[in-house]
Amino acid sequence: MKAIEGGVTAATGFMAASTAAGIKYKNRKDMAMIFSISPCRAAGTFTTNVVKAAPVKWDQQVVEKSLYAQAVVVNAGIANACTGAEGLGYCKETAEAAAEALCINEDSVLVASTGVIGKQLPMDRLKAGIQTMAPTLDGSLESGTEAAQAIMTTDTKKKEVAVQVEIGGKTVTVGGMCKGSGMIHPNMCTMLAFVTTDLLISKELLQEALREDIKDTYNMISVDGDTSTNDTVLLLANGMAGNPEITEKNADYEVFCEALRYVNESLAKKMAGDGEGCTALFEVKVIGAESKAQAVTLSKSIITSSLTKAAIFGHDANWGRILCAMGYSGAQFDPEKVDLFFESAAGRMQIIKDGVALDYSEDEATKILSEPEVTAIADVKMGDAAATAWGCDLTFDYVKINADYRS
Amino acid sequence: MKAIEGGVTAATGFMAASTAAGIKYKNRKDMAMIFSISPCRAAGTFTTNVVKAAPVKWDQQVVEKSLYAQAVVVNAGIANACTGAEGLGYCKETAEAAAEALCINEDSVLVASTGVIGKQLPMDRLKAGIQTMAPTLDGSLESGTEAAQAIMTTDTKKKEVAVQVEIGGKTVTVGGMCKGSGMIHPNMCTMLAFVTTDLLISKELLQEALREDIKDTYNMISVDGDTSTNDTVLLLANGMAGNPEITEKNADYEVFCEALRYVNESLAKKMAGDGEGCTALFEVKVIGAESKAQAVTLSKSIITSSLTKAAIFGHDANWGRILCAMGYSGAQFDPEKVDLFFESAAGRMQIIKDGVALDYSEDEATKILSEPEVTAIADVKMGDAAATAWGCDLTFDYVKINADYRS
Repeated sequence: MKAIEGGVTAATGFMAASTAAGIKYKNRKDMAMIFSISPCRAAGTFTTNVVKAAPVKWDQQVVEKSLYAQAVVVNAGIANACTGAEGLGYCKETAEAAAEALCINEDSVLVASTGVIGKQLPMDRLKAGIQTMAPTLDGSLESGTEAAQAIMTTDTKKKEVAVQVEIGGKTVTVGGMCKGSGMIHPNMCTMLAFVTTDLLISKELLQEALREDIKDTYNMISVDGDTSTNDTVLLLANGMAGNPEITEKNADYEVFCEALRYVNESLAKKMAGDGEGCTALFEVKVIGAESKAQAVTLSKSIITSSLTKAAIFGHDANWGRILCAMGYSGAQFDPEKVDLFFESAAGRMQIIKDGVALDYSEDEATKILSEPEVTAIADVKMGDAAATAWGCDLTFDYVKINADYRS
Repeated sequence: MKAIEGGVTAATGFMAASTAAGIKYKNRKDMAMIFSISPCRAAGTFTTNVVKAAPVKWDQQVVEKSLYAQAVVVNAGIANACTGAEGLGYCKETAEAAAEALCINEDSVLVASTGVIGKQLPMDRLKAGIQTMAPTLDGSLESGTEAAQAIMTTDTKKKEVAVQVEIGGKTVTVGGMCKGSGMIHPNMCTMLAFVTTDLLISKELLQEALREDIKDTYNMISVDGDTSTNDTVLLLANGMAGNPEITEKNADYEVFCEALRYVNESLAKKMAGDGEGCTALFEVKVIGAESKAQAVTLSKSIITSSLTKAAIFGHDANWGRILCAMGYSGAQFDPEKVDLFFESAAGRMQIIKDGVALDYSEDEATKILSEPEVTAIADVKMGDAAATAWGCDLTFDYVKINADYRS
């Protein structure tokens, strides 16, 4: 497996475009389009929120019922959520406009939105954006990167990644981009992720590979515990790598799953590390668990604890809050057996042994916790299952961003 | 029912004392003691956190196994949680010291702690505090108020309330004090509440009255979603009102339950309204629910949403976040049937009708949301069940307080 430059346009046959359509933002790009020159098998996973944005409903239909998908139209600034029948109609209008501009069927157009809830899309500007983007589609890495920038809301960094593996004697590329930042607690958020590959694979296995992978990647991150109305991960495979089609869970499938994991985990960590207002990526590993489910419950409870997140912001080794968050998670364990470690580029240190604090150096702990990527490792000594979750610190800027997001 | 001045010393036979023992704070009181001149039947509810502080374990034993309780010793500053066998031993030592000073049995002494997790109590200062307090116990309202001040940590206001009802021809008083502020998401937190009454009632009914009441009071508040290791509500009844003993769920029991509800709901709201760093009490009523459980799930999901809390801080009618939080709560409902209202001393306004925003005035909404007590009412139109939850806004000060709590 080889990490390469690029994102959604890294795989053969994929093109992207972006434009400043004026959906909400001024003086910046806020629409993007992905297009494959060959029809794609599409897989998708979506928010579990009962309140589903209109684009989620539209894409669920396309992923389920259309044989192929070939384009994705994304806008940043308005989420098209809680917009009723009018909002759903606008998804269809968007797909129609893109289909016409690209000479494809409307049921092969996926749409995605992110931004404020409850406002209707300005369809005139959206359609004009599509008109502008269609003729400027190109397959360069730069156009992929510009698309990744265009879909940002409160994100501070564009997020893309790509990797290559060899399958059936052919080079297969998997690349993706995403945006995250707030209302991030995916339960397959306003996380949007778009992954493209030139692999040839059956639609069923493509969906299964995605469904399994998100459990350990996007569903293991949280910025604020709020599961968005718009969470969408789309995976498009156009088959242009020329590999023999994958139709069963063989060694080739496993290689693809590894590549997909690399891309999804990288994108998920980028989202967590660029959570609204955050200054640090906070990684939590729970080891020695009796089951995966227990490890997941414990690790997610820690990364979502407001008090723990504030302590990370303060570079404070406030391990009591971590034990507390484990305790109210709903998982059963013996607090008096727990070992806890902090780790970062500045070193590694054991803080708790068997539930009680060691005589550790607070200065040393603060040094470890002052890095931009910080890991806590909790060993519950019950078995050999493990899970990793990613979050971020809770900061003044998080409050600032969200106290007047709409203005 | 008549609201009266006072707190834990309002009921006949209850006394209080407090002192600056130097547990953690300097130049302020940080220990309190409650004493009843007559032995009390005691009821208690405690944190559901798997990680239980030592005083929780001690009190559970006393409530369950002792026939009577007669004193409560409380310290602020150190939680005595995650302190192992040493910490539990200190609970026993505290009870022994109090028992000796007060000439009662050690198994009738309840203890409670709040503050930083993982530090051992300074037993010399704690015992000296008990020695100082015992001879200064008195039944005045002032001594109750001073006790309520002594148990505060990051609270900004002392919290006490009292009420009188007539039962069996006798005046019965129920009074209480509590502290809250952070790590507040009681699931019977570092909430501590102490309620005293001079009612004569069987121990079983006293416990049942408390167990039922906390579901609608303390368990319906949240400051930060973190369920503490120390949450404790203690209810002491010394029987000195002279009423005929309540031994069944008769009309007298109902009158007591109403008084208990008044005291517990008042204390719970005071905790929510004085959450760490907060500027507003945020009340959420879910009405038209198909079941109480559904209404509870929906209302608690809204008050715990970081994004909604930040919007309340910003006086921003960001109703999309409320609908979003309802959507990921786990409860099923039709988003396209939801009506939403905001209400405060400045007025009442409908924001959403059938899941879609009305053409409301943002200025007017901001005015309503700028009051110190703000209510959101969500009608899901499925039935006639309802629930009310209380939280607070998420502010810069919350982050500030919790980024360097230990220093």
